[in-house]
Amino acid sequence: MVIGIDMMGGDFAPMEAVKGVHLYLSAHNIPASLLLIGDKEKIETLLTEQHISSEKISIVHAEQVIGMHEHPTKALKEKKQSSIAIGFHLLATGKMDAFISAGNTGAMLVGALFSIKAVEGVIRPTISTIIPKANGGTGLLLDVGLNADCKPEQLNQFAIMGSVYAQLILGIEKPRVGLINVGEEEGKGNLLAQATYPLLKENKHINFAGNIEGRDVLMDKADVMVCEGFTGNIILKMAESLYDISHQRQVKDEYFERFNFENYGGTPVLGVAKPVIIGHGISGAKAFMNMIHLAQLMLEKEVMQRMKEALS
Amino acid sequence: MVIGIDMMGGDFAPMEAVKGVHLYLSAHNIPASLLLIGDKEKIETLLTEQHISSEKISIVHAEQVIGMHEHPTKALKEKKQSSIAIGFHLLATGKMDAFISAGNTGAMLVGALFSIKAVEGVIRPTISTIIPKANGGTGLLLDVGLNADCKPEQLNQFAIMGSVYAQLILGIEKPRVGLINVGEEEGKGNLLAQATYPLLKENKHINFAGNIEGRDVLMDKADVMVCEGFTGNIILKMAESLYDISHQRQVKDEYFERFNFENYGGTPVLGVAKPVIIGHGISGAKAFMNMIHLAQLMLEKEVMQRMKEALS
Repeated sequence: MVIGIDMMGGDFAPMEAVKGVHLYLSAHNIPASLLLIGDKEKIETLLTEQHISSEKISIVHAEQVIGMHEHPTKALKEKKQSSIAIGFHLLATGKMDAFISAGNTGAMLVGALFSIKAVEGVIRPTISTIIPKANGGTGLLLDVGLNADCKPEQLNQFAIMGSVYAQLILGIEKPRVGLINVGEEEGKGNLLAQATYPLLKENKHINFAGNIEGRDVLMDKADVMVCEGFTGNIILKMAESLYDISHQRQVKDEYFERFNFENYGGTPVLGVAKPVIIGHGISGAKAFMNMIHLAQLMLEKEVMQRMKEALS
Repeated sequence: MVIGIDMMGGDFAPMEAVKGVHLYLSAHNIPASLLLIGDKEKIETLLTEQHISSEKISIVHAEQVIGMHEHPTKALKEKKQSSIAIGFHLLATGKMDAFISAGNTGAMLVGALFSIKAVEGVIRPTISTIIPKANGGTGLLLDVGLNADCKPEQLNQFAIMGSVYAQLILGIEKPRVGLINVGEEEGKGNLLAQATYPLLKENKHINFAGNIEGRDVLMDKADVMVCEGFTGNIILKMAESLYDISHQRQVKDEYFERFNFENYGGTPVLGVAKPVIIGHGISGAKAFMNMIHLAQLMLEKEVMQRMKEALS
């Protein structure tokens, strides 16, 4: 198992990425080999400084870096020697099994969509987010912005992919799927939600719990919450702002602390053939370590294969 | 100025409605006459018990009540003698100038849409909500559920109606209009948001501030926030849940207290020719009083006339 890491992505690169690798290697059981992609000299210097040496790691030099605010498609095209472009090339050619970056999110998405294959049967890949629930549990919301306009069939696939992920990665045995909607009863909603409901209801691969409203998003009503990427993105960013607000107001509450999305490592692109994990720009060492663990777990549990089976 | 009140609507009817009328009448300056619509005997008994007598009030008997969970269209059709049906009849025939109810929301919306005229030029009326801002200010979000699917022209009209309302009722001099979206730059968004942006940009009747993201909804970035009713409804109900969660968790914070939407009295249907104000089912005396004041202010400021001018 080979996991590639873009060492140049994120606000604190490559330092925090190196520290994250260190944390990962400090554990007893290290099943994965790591490919560190980036400025070889800088990485080697930091590895030496941090006294990190392991046969589990090797460095792939990348001359260029895609900045956080560069235009994704343009940057990927023009910067063939960037850590992200090299990463996707290695992933596509089978030199590695998963790719992690806290760099330019757009470039990571474009790379995921166009460099590697989609899981067989997937109309469009999706990105999700963890939603902390007020009762202490954890939900999954998808799509959160990759697909601003969707067809009912796509939402139906999000439900399947989300369920597989919730089961295998979040450890929720029989995840309840909720359709984000403006009312509880069947027949409610905009045209998309109205057309999606019957598909979810008849879907044998999921455990459909019906419509859920805005007031249920933070409550324990569904484990996998499905919507198009427009609404999902608004929900995600509004949830993120709760952390900032509670800090500004010095509300010291465990629950609002959980809206610090930096803690969650990163979010995988679901529906592509290999794990691609996108971290927050602000990712620290712990986030990098968590992302490596997530990639490892997704490979061990064969998440992509299980999605393919559920979608067929 | 005659304001009609459905005395039978809401969870604590008619008691809290009567108390609300009492609060309103206790002020020094009472410009409006009130028509109390409902069970005459019950209302009279309560008025006597509360020692309320005023030449400003008169009672219109209504034999029937539309329950909170009845089917709106069906109930309005079958219960012609209900307080809501009578209210809309009196409003449509010019016997009163505004109508308030904390009863069946659906029936109030159906009544507003089909019993009375739209403001000239309005494609579809809309409903809005107050959004408390973390800096202490107050924003307006619309649509919050009346129009789950919208065309760009509708969002453009929401921006105008919201601006007029924010200016005249919320007292915001030059309200900044934000288009709810998944990114800040022009060109971002789903098809609807992409098509709406240029309309707002070119609209001379509003002060367009560009796209605002989910993280800006609770921040001081725009005063009037525009979206279709699907996303708006999810945002509203998620915001409502913040109050419940902060109470459950005993977070004592002024800001989260402001998400107690019961405090705001009610929400007007914007774009219909006369003020129609819909209260929460759980409305108490203060909410009723606030709704009467809101109806009065909307009439005094000629909000509908000003919307018509801005839309033409």
